[in-house]
Amino acid sequence: MLDHLGDLKRTHHCGELRSEHVGQTVTLLGWVAKRRDLGNLTFVDIRDRWGLTQLVLDPEYNADAHAKAKNLRSEFVIGIVGNVRARSENTINNKLATGNIEVFVNELFVLNHAATPPFPIKDDVEGVGEELRLKHRYLDLRRPALQKNFLLRHKLTMAVRNYLDTKQFVELETPILTKSTPEGARDYLVPSRVHKGSFYALPQSPQIFKQLFMVSGFERYFQIARCFRDEDLRADRQPEFTQIDMEMSFVQRDDVYALLEGMMAELMRVIGVEIEAPFQRLPYERAMDDYGSDKPDLRYDMKLNDLSDKVADCGFGVFADCVANNGRVKAVCAPGAASKSRKEIESLESWLKQDYGIRGLAWLKYTEKGVSGPIKKFLGEDLCRELFTISGGGEGDILFFVADAREKANQALGALRCRLAEMLDMIPENTFKFLWVTDFPLVEFDDDSARYVALHHPFTSPLDEDLELLKEDPSQVRAKAYDLVLNGFEIGGGSIRIHRRDIQDAMFKALGLSEEEAEEKFGFLLNALSYGAPPHGGIALGLDRIAMLMANEKSLRDVIAFPKTTSAYCMMTDSPSRVSVDQLVDLGITVLHAHKDKEN
Amino acid sequence: MLDHLGDLKRTHHCGELRSEHVGQTVTLLGWVAKRRDLGNLTFVDIRDRWGLTQLVLDPEYNADAHAKAKNLRSEFVIGIVGNVRARSENTINNKLATGNIEVFVNELFVLNHAATPPFPIKDDVEGVGEELRLKHRYLDLRRPALQKNFLLRHKLTMAVRNYLDTKQFVELETPILTKSTPEGARDYLVPSRVHKGSFYALPQSPQIFKQLFMVSGFERYFQIARCFRDEDLRADRQPEFTQIDMEMSFVQRDDVYALLEGMMAELMRVIGVEIEAPFQRLPYERAMDDYGSDKPDLRYDMKLNDLSDKVADCGFGVFADCVANNGRVKAVCAPGAASKSRKEIESLESWLKQDYGIRGLAWLKYTEKGVSGPIKKFLGEDLCRELFTISGGGEGDILFFVADAREKANQALGALRCRLAEMLDMIPENTFKFLWVTDFPLVEFDDDSARYVALHHPFTSPLDEDLELLKEDPSQVRAKAYDLVLNGFEIGGGSIRIHRRDIQDAMFKALGLSEEEAEEKFGFLLNALSYGAPPHGGIALGLDRIAMLMANEKSLRDVIAFPKTTSAYCMMTDSPSRVSVDQLVDLGITVLHAHKDKEN
Repeated sequence: MLDHLGDLKRTHHCGELRSEHVGQTVTLLGWVAKRRDLGNLTFVDIRDRWGLTQLVLDPEYNADAHAKAKNLRSEFVIGIVGNVRARSENTINNKLATGNIEVFVNELFVLNHAATPPFPIKDDVEGVGEELRLKHRYLDLRRPALQKNFLLRHKLTMAVRNYLDTKQFVELETPILTKSTPEGARDYLVPSRVHKGSFYALPQSPQIFKQLFMVSGFERYFQIARCFRDEDLRADRQPEFTQIDMEMSFVQRDDVYALLEGMMAELMRVIGVEIEAPFQRLPYERAMDDYGSDKPDLRYDMKLNDLSDKVADCGFGVFADCVANNGRVKAVCAPGAASKSRKEIESLESWLKQDYGIRGLAWLKYTEKGVSGPIKKFLGEDLCRELFTISGGGEGDILFFVADAREKANQALGALRCRLAEMLDMIPENTFKFLWVTDFPLVEFDDDSARYVALHHPFTSPLDEDLELLKEDPSQVRAKAYDLVLNGFEIGGGSIRIHRRDIQDAMFKALGLSEEEAEEKFGFLLNALSYGAPPHGGIALGLDRIAMLMANEKSLRDVIAFPKTTSAYCMMTDSPSRVSVDQLVDLGITVLHAHKDKEN
Repeated sequence: MLDHLGDLKRTHHCGELRSEHVGQTVTLLGWVAKRRDLGNLTFVDIRDRWGLTQLVLDPEYNADAHAKAKNLRSEFVIGIVGNVRARSENTINNKLATGNIEVFVNELFVLNHAATPPFPIKDDVEGVGEELRLKHRYLDLRRPALQKNFLLRHKLTMAVRNYLDTKQFVELETPILTKSTPEGARDYLVPSRVHKGSFYALPQSPQIFKQLFMVSGFERYFQIARCFRDEDLRADRQPEFTQIDMEMSFVQRDDVYALLEGMMAELMRVIGVEIEAPFQRLPYERAMDDYGSDKPDLRYDMKLNDLSDKVADCGFGVFADCVANNGRVKAVCAPGAASKSRKEIESLESWLKQDYGIRGLAWLKYTEKGVSGPIKKFLGEDLCRELFTISGGGEGDILFFVADAREKANQALGALRCRLAEMLDMIPENTFKFLWVTDFPLVEFDDDSARYVALHHPFTSPLDEDLELLKEDPSQVRAKAYDLVLNGFEIGGGSIRIHRRDIQDAMFKALGLSEEEAEEKFGFLLNALSYGAPPHGGIALGLDRIAMLMANEKSLRDVIAFPKTTSAYCMMTDSPSRVSVDQLVDLGITVLHAHKDKEN
């Protein structure tokens, strides 16, 4: 028989009681974390969101409560009234915040039973499949580690909002049922019942709306906004995700940088970390050349070195030919890697060959016996040593070479750099290195459609000094675009936007859109730009990823309450799911090819 | 030729300069609100989000800037550098915050042109059709009145979040792509590309998810959540709307009331209004009997009076028969209405007959000459006067009667009460009367499906004392449900939920769901209740409506940035819209009957 909550009101949380409370009568409410009998006594750990307290039930103190307690099992919901007592010296638990006390129970109320959970509620989930945990997500979310993540996430969004509020930003909501804003990814569509045959699209971002807010004169907009992309999911993507979305009028890039640096400092303070501002700024070209990545992890150094000039005339044909044919010979020096085995080195090579399409990974090892390695004989000891010196290395290190087209060499060595940092344990813990990557190309050539496409989106402003090139050679135009990078993750991206109708028209033209196409797709934006649009720019940050990095988690699923699988499926609610024929008739649509898979 | 923003940085807002700034050199950025030439001089009002400042351009002071200014037109985007000067005594404008000063312009930068707007940017929108304003919403949003509404809305959400944060609530996000939670309204569906033939539904509310958060032990959840209902829209509905959604564990109704009263007090402080707590509480039955409404407007009194006993034996057959047949004779006394014409009274009667299906509206008028009216002769002067006295009326008033089944009489008189309050100018301005309506019936009988349906939703807990009735006679069961009412609008509703699996099973059974149906629709919730669900309850508030009432607006469209029409259409983006065949093929669906309407 279950008890009613009645007038039972919690006086303290389960993480609150200390020695100073000894002697008080308290009421606690929560879940049974553990029950054990010891001689006559029964001990129960009661858990709530704030912590854990040990209860003691003594049949001589209260026989009824003790009898009830004997039937308690894990995850039962209980309430107790009891007296706080100091623990005896030898039972004090220093690992527990409440470990100095225990509560002798006068009254025990059983508020709900619990079937045996399909997995134990504890942070060590080893041996428990993720599918099972996702199916019972409401139990998985009881784990203290996940609870902590979501409390952190809440604190982060509070900090964002309070910071932006003090900066006079206004949070404004934009529609979820809206029109497709073609930004490369696939839209989720919503059939309209009233306008049969027409569809809403879920927003990939509030991009156009936030620009319209600037046209409206709100000047400083933000929103913690849900966005949607119907893409084939990688492990670190979700069909819906949350952006900290911002836009400001009358600003240059430096204003955005300064604002964001202040905001990131506030966020880092939530986890007790002080960071330095301004953040380093790195033009895109430079980032690619030095780190082989547009989102380099700066927690460790290990830059890429261009040794082309040094090896142009060397005796190693592969290097010399590469340089002669406009390729680059680049190298990365792996400090302390000389102890790695030939097998480990070769596995790196085969990985890079397969994933990055390079022809080979040359290397030189520098030990107390001097330089060795397959290509040593072509270069000679002196040149080898010089190459180490130029690359900032020496005894104990390995120098890895890729000779290829510049872009390919950069990408392969950039990936190798990250892998080596992990292998060599070069990544310091609890370190947060922010970086602005700037001056991205405005457009890139898309082979499929045989035309230029916007690298960020078609509303990104060119650099003033590159404006003239927009007509002549769009590929040479740099954009007022920037990415915010943290520890090798792109956590945000933005730009100064085009605010002039004539430049937006020229941009669409450069992207191969006819006037009619531009009008049909973006007519309302083009119109808006005609009615007095101020200079403006902004940024969008990935809240999920920021929360993940700050919570020191590896998966977005650990910071999203009800995540979907990589097939965009919710294991808990079994959605998406079949709907009734009536619903489809209402919408005027029908299903052509129903997919049969195990999850449905 | 347009100027670049360059290093132009605003030193002050356009609403900021006062006499104390006289002599300073300032930089302002904004829009041209008005330009006029007066003799040699040109005056320009510059406007930004914060206000308006008068600029003066004198050709003798700066000829270039003056020449540029001659070409300015409304809504051009400009920046200026100039000197603040005191206005001469006779040009001071006390209506303007900056009316004591003007800025003599040294430099003028034209940052963008503006075509002539399709309607003037001013709060008086008379003569401008709403369609035109919705099509150019980005210009409509420039109007100071709308800007003010959205700044208020932002302040309200900040106040909500800060209040709930101090009360240890955690903001948690729930999915937008989810499973249908059948709550009466039609779902918006999203076809799945990966799981062809299956659909996500957009949430009508996060109801089940927030209950799962309680099962997870978050204890105190909130979210400012977007919700969706695919209903035929009335004037004050939108297909997507925003809820302040909350849920708490280990609470009774009084805890929810107290928390919400504190929150509403915070919100009202945003507009400078202090309110009293606790709010009045009125059981549903009482609200219907006294006010003929489950959301009575308490800014005025005018209660309904049950005069059945007094007229049961009177000479007026309609009244006597009604009472004899178990009906009620009820009346509302309209103070000061005696001056209203017979025509006005008769128009009330025909409205009530048509909209509320009553047979007639009897009335008595009390003037200095005594009581008169069509039914006077049946009742006699003495009884008439007594009925006035019982109803709290007297000379100068009219007593309106409806004799009908209790529910019908209540509804008709409830509507009449509201109409009379408007007619008689009884509604005080800037008054905010909050009210809890409590003890709603748990279920109501639905004639269409010939079964009971939940009045709120099927997760609402019965009153403890009515629990036994759930099996015997569900219609008699009262619920732990409550609505929060403000000035005659339901601004929120909630309940203590069912936290026990056995009671939830019984509830589904009372609603005519078989075990299989319950399992299929709500299996994951039923499961969750089995694993230690705490007692919990919550509420959801309509943010849009609260913002509307607090902004003193009549339409939700005045507090939603990009609203849709009553046909769920966005005039600005022209959505919903047709999509490509490829997109439909991707989703495995096809359109059966495309609707052709003027908007598409």
